[in-house]
Amino acid sequence: MSANVAPERVVLLAGGVGGARLAHGLQEHLGSNLAVVVNTADDVERHGLAVSPDHDTVMYTLAGLDNREQGWGLEGETFNAAGMLERYGEETWFRLGDKDLATHIERTRRLRSGERLSSVMRDLGARLGVRCSIVPMSDDLVRTMVTTDKGELAFQDWFVRLRCEPVVKSVRFAGSEKARPHPALLETGALRGVVVCPSNPFVSVAPILAVPGVQAALARAKAPKVAVTPIVGGQAIKGPAAKMLAELGHDVSALGVARYYREWVDGFVLDVEDARLAPDIAALGLKVKVADTMMRNDADKRRVAAQVLDFVDELALSGRHS
Amino acid sequence: MSANVAPERVVLLAGGVGGARLAHGLQEHLGSNLAVVVNTADDVERHGLAVSPDHDTVMYTLAGLDNREQGWGLEGETFNAAGMLERYGEETWFRLGDKDLATHIERTRRLRSGERLSSVMRDLGARLGVRCSIVPMSDDLVRTMVTTDKGELAFQDWFVRLRCEPVVKSVRFAGSEKARPHPALLETGALRGVVVCPSNPFVSVAPILAVPGVQAALARAKAPKVAVTPIVGGQAIKGPAAKMLAELGHDVSALGVARYYREWVDGFVLDVEDARLAPDIAALGLKVKVADTMMRNDADKRRVAAQVLDFVDELALSGRHS
Repeated sequence: MSANVAPERVVLLAGGVGGARLAHGLQEHLGSNLAVVVNTADDVERHGLAVSPDHDTVMYTLAGLDNREQGWGLEGETFNAAGMLERYGEETWFRLGDKDLATHIERTRRLRSGERLSSVMRDLGARLGVRCSIVPMSDDLVRTMVTTDKGELAFQDWFVRLRCEPVVKSVRFAGSEKARPHPALLETGALRGVVVCPSNPFVSVAPILAVPGVQAALARAKAPKVAVTPIVGGQAIKGPAAKMLAELGHDVSALGVARYYREWVDGFVLDVEDARLAPDIAALGLKVKVADTMMRNDADKRRVAAQVLDFVDELALSGRHS
Repeated sequence: MSANVAPERVVLLAGGVGGARLAHGLQEHLGSNLAVVVNTADDVERHGLAVSPDHDTVMYTLAGLDNREQGWGLEGETFNAAGMLERYGEETWFRLGDKDLATHIERTRRLRSGERLSSVMRDLGARLGVRCSIVPMSDDLVRTMVTTDKGELAFQDWFVRLRCEPVVKSVRFAGSEKARPHPALLETGALRGVVVCPSNPFVSVAPILAVPGVQAALARAKAPKVAVTPIVGGQAIKGPAAKMLAELGHDVSALGVARYYREWVDGFVLDVEDARLAPDIAALGLKVKVADTMMRNDADKRRVAAQVLDFVDELALSGRHS
């Protein structure tokens, strides 16, 4: 091996399902050279347990435990505990499965014993056979708060309990000003690339960027930074991204997302269905890759990940990102 | 109603399965006039959750949620969380079902918020439709410690993890000296009777008696006190009572149990199979009732409970107990 070997490490900024799918594809290509930084601002305490929805979706998917047919949750999941919790008068709008509960029970026990969240996540992932590393954006508590026409709501209150119905006026990340970023977000000196997963820009990716020092570290990074569109044909693949784009005054399109990221990303992966937007996105000063970004199965995930990595490497060769 | 109406309230001192079955039968006859005082000295923390095995067996049985066929646990129980906890490296020798976990999650959340155990138990029972009251022997922490040929062991370590195999030399109740009894144990002024359930004398009933003030309150009680044998034909119906009788130097028989309780009970319910022991037990100064004490189904429970209540009332009429 030469001392000048190209850096292999890729950092993926990830939310829930979209992040999990792309992470799964990237893990196939990169193995331990992939670091998935997950949003923890939608973590929530339910029934006295520490729940990390985005992390767990990513972990279960990377461990191959996800329910492929359903597209979310765990394979073979049951909801017997939730039924009992309901009988005890607990609100179960945030319905936790029995297998999933084990993760929250174990995380809660270890956090209460003084262990850091990043340490718990590392160990849980390893025990489930995850090959890459999954790290929280911060070990400190950050919580997404959504200001809506019904007042300010904690994220999961808005997202799950109220099914995203209240109109969003703004989003803030409570606690972010004092949060310290995970080291994986700062070690941007020798990277192959930084990838923004196809997740909600405002509540999955923005919280990661809101941790002090993260934007500066990304600006320092010499590696290409590319975002994969979460919007295809004006629709979010999953979740309220399209609704939020509209309510927050953005174009409800891949172009709207590209504009939102333009300040700090070098390239944008656009879905074939939106190929007509390529010139507009290029006009923002971004390189554009048009690809079939839909990830319906493992072969799709692997193919999209390969295209993203090709794009990253093309940008590195072209020097566009420096 | 006359002011001189006979007292209706019955206090049952209960351990796990035997206590639960007799409690179920008594609840059928007494409804809210039954107070079941449960042993909490075999409570244990597992996976960071507060587990109260005796209480929960009693509560599930009284709520009609118990698995009748199996004789323990919850009907329709699954163990999906336990499987995941195992993958996370947790020891699962104390295997908790998914429905059961909900009880521990809810109890733990409420205890952590500062609520007393008795208050949590009252509410959980009410929500499951339990008609009588189930109370802990104390809101304070008492833990059964078993001195064995393998050293001193926490009760569940000995009972579940080591399957009662180590030879028992003695038993102590750590924390009992500072524990305050539940008021139900002290309000013995106007009772119809006190019943000792067919549970293990050394680890189910003795811990309740070890709480300061309980023995004095029972001694003050004018109502008859009767014990139901946990030993039939030299065997425990369930659990290690017979093994412990032998190892602690007692007769492995209903007579051995009657001797153990003779200081403070008035009557002893003996199984028909052991009728030949009736004269020996009577010779201890106890009244004896011979009955079929086996509780295989709800009709059995109801019948045994009726016989116990008849015995209590006979003793009250005969004045034997005063």
